[in-house]
Amino acid sequence: MSVDTRYSLDERSLDRGLVRWIMKSVGNPRISVRLWNGDEFRVTEAPPVACMEFRSRRAVFKLLRAPSVGFGECYSEGLIDIHGDFLAFANEITAAVTQRDANRYYIPRLKSLLHAARPNSLSRSQHNVHHHYDLGNDFYKLWLDERMVYTCAYYDTPAATLDEAQVAKLDHVCRKLQLAPGQKVIEAGCGWGALALHMAEHYGVEVIAYNNSREQVAYARERAAALKLDDRVTIVQDDYRNIHERCDAFVSVGMLEHVGLANFRTLGALIKRVLKPDGIGLIHSIGRSFPNPPDPWILKHIFPGGHIPSLSEMMSVFEPYKFSVLDVENLRLHYARTCAAWLASFEAEADKVADLYSEEFLRAWRLYLAGSSAGFESGTLQLYQVVFAPRGNNDVPWTREHQYPRAAESH
Amino acid sequence: MSVDTRYSLDERSLDRGLVRWIMKSVGNPRISVRLWNGDEFRVTEAPPVACMEFRSRRAVFKLLRAPSVGFGECYSEGLIDIHGDFLAFANEITAAVTQRDANRYYIPRLKSLLHAARPNSLSRSQHNVHHHYDLGNDFYKLWLDERMVYTCAYYDTPAATLDEAQVAKLDHVCRKLQLAPGQKVIEAGCGWGALALHMAEHYGVEVIAYNNSREQVAYARERAAALKLDDRVTIVQDDYRNIHERCDAFVSVGMLEHVGLANFRTLGALIKRVLKPDGIGLIHSIGRSFPNPPDPWILKHIFPGGHIPSLSEMMSVFEPYKFSVLDVENLRLHYARTCAAWLASFEAEADKVADLYSEEFLRAWRLYLAGSSAGFESGTLQLYQVVFAPRGNNDVPWTREHQYPRAAESH
Repeated sequence: MSVDTRYSLDERSLDRGLVRWIMKSVGNPRISVRLWNGDEFRVTEAPPVACMEFRSRRAVFKLLRAPSVGFGECYSEGLIDIHGDFLAFANEITAAVTQRDANRYYIPRLKSLLHAARPNSLSRSQHNVHHHYDLGNDFYKLWLDERMVYTCAYYDTPAATLDEAQVAKLDHVCRKLQLAPGQKVIEAGCGWGALALHMAEHYGVEVIAYNNSREQVAYARERAAALKLDDRVTIVQDDYRNIHERCDAFVSVGMLEHVGLANFRTLGALIKRVLKPDGIGLIHSIGRSFPNPPDPWILKHIFPGGHIPSLSEMMSVFEPYKFSVLDVENLRLHYARTCAAWLASFEAEADKVADLYSEEFLRAWRLYLAGSSAGFESGTLQLYQVVFAPRGNNDVPWTREHQYPRAAESH
Repeated sequence: MSVDTRYSLDERSLDRGLVRWIMKSVGNPRISVRLWNGDEFRVTEAPPVACMEFRSRRAVFKLLRAPSVGFGECYSEGLIDIHGDFLAFANEITAAVTQRDANRYYIPRLKSLLHAARPNSLSRSQHNVHHHYDLGNDFYKLWLDERMVYTCAYYDTPAATLDEAQVAKLDHVCRKLQLAPGQKVIEAGCGWGALALHMAEHYGVEVIAYNNSREQVAYARERAAALKLDDRVTIVQDDYRNIHERCDAFVSVGMLEHVGLANFRTLGALIKRVLKPDGIGLIHSIGRSFPNPPDPWILKHIFPGGHIPSLSEMMSVFEPYKFSVLDVENLRLHYARTCAAWLASFEAEADKVADLYSEEFLRAWRLYLAGSSAGFESGTLQLYQVVFAPRGNNDVPWTREHQYPRAAESH
């Protein structure tokens, strides 16, 4: 009897010790812990922002073996539960990990290089795109804005709604490109076509937009026809590597993340080939403040084949082809807010998501959206818009005042 | 007799052949050639923009041995003369060379790495700075604007004069830094103090400004006292590596070019140490669109120890310390115009320059100013302003509208 009790006590303190070790390894966040055996504790004095419940010992072992993948899978499967505000939990964990990693540079950089060594072939890219973007338009309609823009919005005024901020983003991109009626624009990775349609409708340009996702292409074509823009907007279901038309402007919003570092030069060479010498280009991409491989759980379950580049890594699109980088803007706080807005809409439709797919899918996507918002909020993730021009193109704006129409109007 | 003639004819055609070869190696510019023997010819059909006179065969040999250093030294010494508009000549040669080099990437990149391997020690930096900036304030007063700003101006309106454009630049930098009264600013490499004094006078901040140049420091201190700003502006005659004060804003305009690539990380570590976690920084530097070593003549005669970084190279200031790059603006066309304005003032004072120094000095500096303007005009040179913040600083502006006061006013 006494042996049993002692054994049970030891086991209990071993469990607690392992979980303490896990919490320490993510920077001792202000998160209280509840174990399957009813044991509850904190790892810091500060009041907790949420409670993390380990519902079985298996969750502890999975986290010990692979922290990111382990947590993602355990949360998705329900082996771990979060009590309290999920976004606050994600922000707290991300901030603590970021703090812990403040001085790590060489190991992530090396991992980033190793990760980058695997290029995405045409068929692999097709598979990766299919995995994420062909989940079904009905799913994305549940929580995206009315135009189905699945990239960082631009909150040009603090009171802007997500819908308004997505339109502001489309206009911000168009102003940066200084579009003029009659110009030909190539878009690489056009999503559901919102930017292509906006450019054609409001800036009078002709657009050829490429996309590998069957579902998105079908939707974009339908919308182009409905808006009677199909004479000026051509949606091509193909890989960016097969772009061949010449253009006055080249734009890609939210595709570079899927290109893979090993193919950045391929993309640069392609732009060099298609963009006219007096043209202009814009690449909008999630980025890092230093080279760092993607989160392993995101890579395994959400975005296979992706790579989130640092600015120095992004330069391998531009420098080998001597593009002149004109303007880089970092919109990371806008993306934190965009993801938080998506998460709120997503939660409001949680029952429908669970019906469409499964409880596990719902939880995985909750984690992905909240984790992304937390990544941008903490500075783990950045959002870069890079404007560039072929070398020696002097037909570029002298200032960026045209990007701020209230300034331009007052002239 | 016939032998002599044949010999003379051969010699003449040999000279012409060598010069043709030189002109071909710089991309066959629209420049006519005149030789010491009276021979005149062109290398293209197009009408020449200027005439290049080789005044002795020695000039040909010097150019064959080392094109850039050879040309610079021959022109300075008067072995080569340029007839016609000197800036037009510089623009034409630079454009032709740029065109010729359109597809060269790996060789300049390799050379850039080799060049960067030689770090500037403290004493070497002191020597390099002395070489250029201690030429005497009277010399720079002849052709700089009234505030003695020796960096790229910002022509926010097309009609701006150099004086106005330099003030606009100072304000543009201050707006990017979002200075608020009472803040402490560290400036690394303050020139004659124009920015430090402007920040203290118009933005109510306290400035500690570092500079290695004895002559500039003396002038800046005098100006601070005259403007009764010496209680808020401290000019320190020391290397940037000895900065130790903590600050709300870190700014460096036109110093990075002298730091040398091997010391970029040293600079980044320094900024990390002195900039508060909620601070902001700005580095303004001449740049390249791809890694490329400095021009050998410039390195030998004008700016010893310099390195002009590409954006990917510049990132080694920021990425190892996880700074978040917020904003990059390329002002290359502004610098082409600034250098052209300097050249015009310089030419107007040519006699005084020759009296102060020598005819050779006058010619070397004419070539440097015209060549710099041509470099920015052609896209061989870029001018980057990079705004950055410590990782996780969320107290940064949501948009860049505040940089455009006409936009901010109309709110």
